[in-house]
Amino acid sequence: MSDAASARARPGRRPGASGTREAILLAARARFEEVGYDRATIRAIAVQAGVDPALVMHFFGSKQQLFLDAIEMTIKPAEAVPAMLEDGLDGLGERLAAFYLDMWESPDTRDGLAGIMRSAFSHEDAAALLRGFLGSEVFGRLVPSIEGQDAALRVGLAGAHLVGIAIARYVVKVEPLASADRDTVVAAVGPTIQRYFTGDAR
Amino acid sequence: MSDAASARARPGRRPGASGTREAILLAARARFEEVGYDRATIRAIAVQAGVDPALVMHFFGSKQQLFLDAIEMTIKPAEAVPAMLEDGLDGLGERLAAFYLDMWESPDTRDGLAGIMRSAFSHEDAAALLRGFLGSEVFGRLVPSIEGQDAALRVGLAGAHLVGIAIARYVVKVEPLASADRDTVVAAVGPTIQRYFTGDAR
Repeated sequence: MSDAASARARPGRRPGASGTREAILLAARARFEEVGYDRATIRAIAVQAGVDPALVMHFFGSKQQLFLDAIEMTIKPAEAVPAMLEDGLDGLGERLAAFYLDMWESPDTRDGLAGIMRSAFSHEDAAALLRGFLGSEVFGRLVPSIEGQDAALRVGLAGAHLVGIAIARYVVKVEPLASADRDTVVAAVGPTIQRYFTGDAR
Repeated sequence: MSDAASARARPGRRPGASGTREAILLAARARFEEVGYDRATIRAIAVQAGVDPALVMHFFGSKQQLFLDAIEMTIKPAEAVPAMLEDGLDGLGERLAAFYLDMWESPDTRDGLAGIMRSAFSHEDAAALLRGFLGSEVFGRLVPSIEGQDAALRVGLAGAHLVGIAIARYVVKVEPLASADRDTVVAAVGPTIQRYFTGDAR
């Protein structure tokens, strides 16, 4: 936040720029979570980040890009997916389930994820952006490592399962799934994800 | 449906009551889908159904009850769950996956389901109502037939998977899951649900 303040004072200064960018993304994520993609305005995001709306446009160019970069900042697939694939397909289901659950367990990322999903759920524009992002940034990195002609479908089913877990456990809070400890859920879901990746999905 | 309606309505108005009740529920479902639970008003629902707001209150008593009855009308768990359990646990995963997919494939129920989920996703009140409904009306009917101490958790995981499929396929429309034919999805998801119900979930 103090980085953001110094960047505001000297917009061109490098050290503060990344802090400002992050402050804007955090503000955007919070707005998406509070009011949804459609009703989140560049102006309100700028006010929340303590910057001029023109600076938001300077950094991101559009609300679309802001939404995409907010997803990127939250999930970081360019780092996360290769890290998960580093040890091969063995145990990939459990590693992915653990990584995903941990994102939702952490207060830092949980609200961001909820905002992204809430936005995509309520607004077709946001759904299209998320769909494109998942296709190129997540599935595009994961699917080539999975064997079989229907690899993309199976990766999609695995992803769908994880999305459903988050909604049932963290959003609608259906019991006993909501109160089950993290390890129990990872242990139950990991093998299911693994089957979609490597086993007979049928 | 007609039993419930006639039980609620005054005896003298029996013939029209069930039609009116259904019209109100359809209007409510449409409002929940369009604006979410929080912003759907009894007044707007009454206008959309072409009835007086007092009649909505007469039939349902509260927006809460209207939401619950809209869920009930859409999912009909009192009929659907026993019908699914009639042939035992064998193939239950596939029957449930098929039943659930068919609800989403049908334009009649798809928007209703999307509205319920959108409402529960955005508003804690609606989430609490859906949570209670699923607990007593769906899981309460299903869990006693499933063996094992962690039956409730495994049923919850199966339900979470189905919710995720709907979001990925019908709402966010992630490919190739969105375009895969219904039978392919049922064939891929059914065994996963079955494993949660009867197999080793770990």
